Amino acid sequence: MITYSASVSLDGYTAGPGQSEHPLGVGGGRLHDWIKELAVWRTAHGMEGGIESPSSAVLDGDDARLGACVMGRNMFGGGPGPWAEDEPWNGWWGDNPPFHLPVFVVTHHAREPLECKGGTTFTFVTEGVEAAIAQAQKVAAGKDVAINGGSTVARQALAAGLLDEIRFNLVPILLGGGVRLFDGDIPGELEQIGVVEGRGVTHLTYRVLR
Amino acid sequence: MITYSASVSLDGYTAGPGQSEHPLGVGGGRLHDWIKELAVWRTAHGMEGGIESPSSAVLDGDDARLGACVMGRNMFGGGPGPWAEDEPWNGWWGDNPPFHLPVFVVTHHAREPLECKGGTTFTFVTEGVEAAIAQAQKVAAGKDVAINGGSTVARQALAAGLLDEIRFNLVPILLGGGVRLFDGDIPGELEQIGVVEGRGVTHLTYRVLR
Repeated sequence: MITYSASVSLDGYTAGPGQSEHPLGVGGGRLHDWIKELAVWRTAHGMEGGIESPSSAVLDGDDARLGACVMGRNMFGGGPGPWAEDEPWNGWWGDNPPFHLPVFVVTHHAREPLECKGGTTFTFVTEGVEAAIAQAQKVAAGKDVAINGGSTVARQALAAGLLDEIRFNLVPILLGGGVRLFDGDIPGELEQIGVVEGRGVTHLTYRVLR
Repeated sequence: MITYSASVSLDGYTAGPGQSEHPLGVGGGRLHDWIKELAVWRTAHGMEGGIESPSSAVLDGDDARLGACVMGRNMFGGGPGPWAEDEPWNGWWGDNPPFHLPVFVVTHHAREPLECKGGTTFTFVTEGVEAAIAQAQKVAAGKDVAINGGSTVARQALAAGLLDEIRFNLVPILLGGGVRLFDGDIPGELEQIGVVEGRGVTHLTYRVLR
């Protein structure tokens, strides 16, 4: 199954304005306040402490089902910079990225795979979203493939009829601008299949009907 | 308390495109499929049958607390037509409108109040949203005032710091265009205070913090 989970503001943004300077844009960091307080997230990121909430079980469920990730270049490493120069930059993620599984990065820049501590490997795919998803599915061997990050890759996957489930982590903030998850004509019908009320977030899961 | 409740598509629209021809725009009628199947809604609209769902209690709660409504001209009667000519047109609502309480219509066209069967009275307010809300609050005598309909009136009330609660009835459809509830910079912080999972809808209630 191919899934996409995004933290979305009440006005429909997955990142605030000014995304060229910061991957989440101005104010967009608040989209992730709910997750940063969770013990399960903090552990994956090598941090201590944190709380349990109804969101913990949502994340635990993801982890148990997940076999590989696909993300865009922005989520891996942002705009122009060392990455564009093909220097061996590790993206935003440091030596021990929090994914702990194979990650396929959709990019125009070919690059050798990058093996990191903790089980994360980045593979760079220049043949587009569908190719990246196909490679991820092969590695995932029956487990889920999650599309991570902003909306560009997810919208391409949705348009290509490849998404099976979408989860909105709906956060009660208004960003007033930025990147919208849905903006324009999108094919597909959705069926609401689960709602979990967290602390300062609601997890809404939809099946994509084809 | 001043409340606003809107059925919103997953891509953030309270009406589809082409609203000049139909108050809900193309495809926008599906935003209200969830409510039309409810017995509580059908009874209010003089219809028989219908089902109970978790949404029924949400609507019953509204009814118990509600003292008056405020709506825009579009919700009362739509675009150019008899209404613009000051003919005694009853808007979209027929002889026995489903509100059964005082309704204040924000409009540029002065008109005598309209008393209908079943307890609905339409009062036409030409001094703007704040004046309409003030009049509604006076009549409501401590009960809630609900802002109904599309987003224009609600956004003006929010910008004026007059809204206390917002409820999204989030419907798993994508309209691809139309009228957005939030579009641009909106003041105010929101606190998530309640989530109810219905059939084909999720009710998300937020308190506006000031």
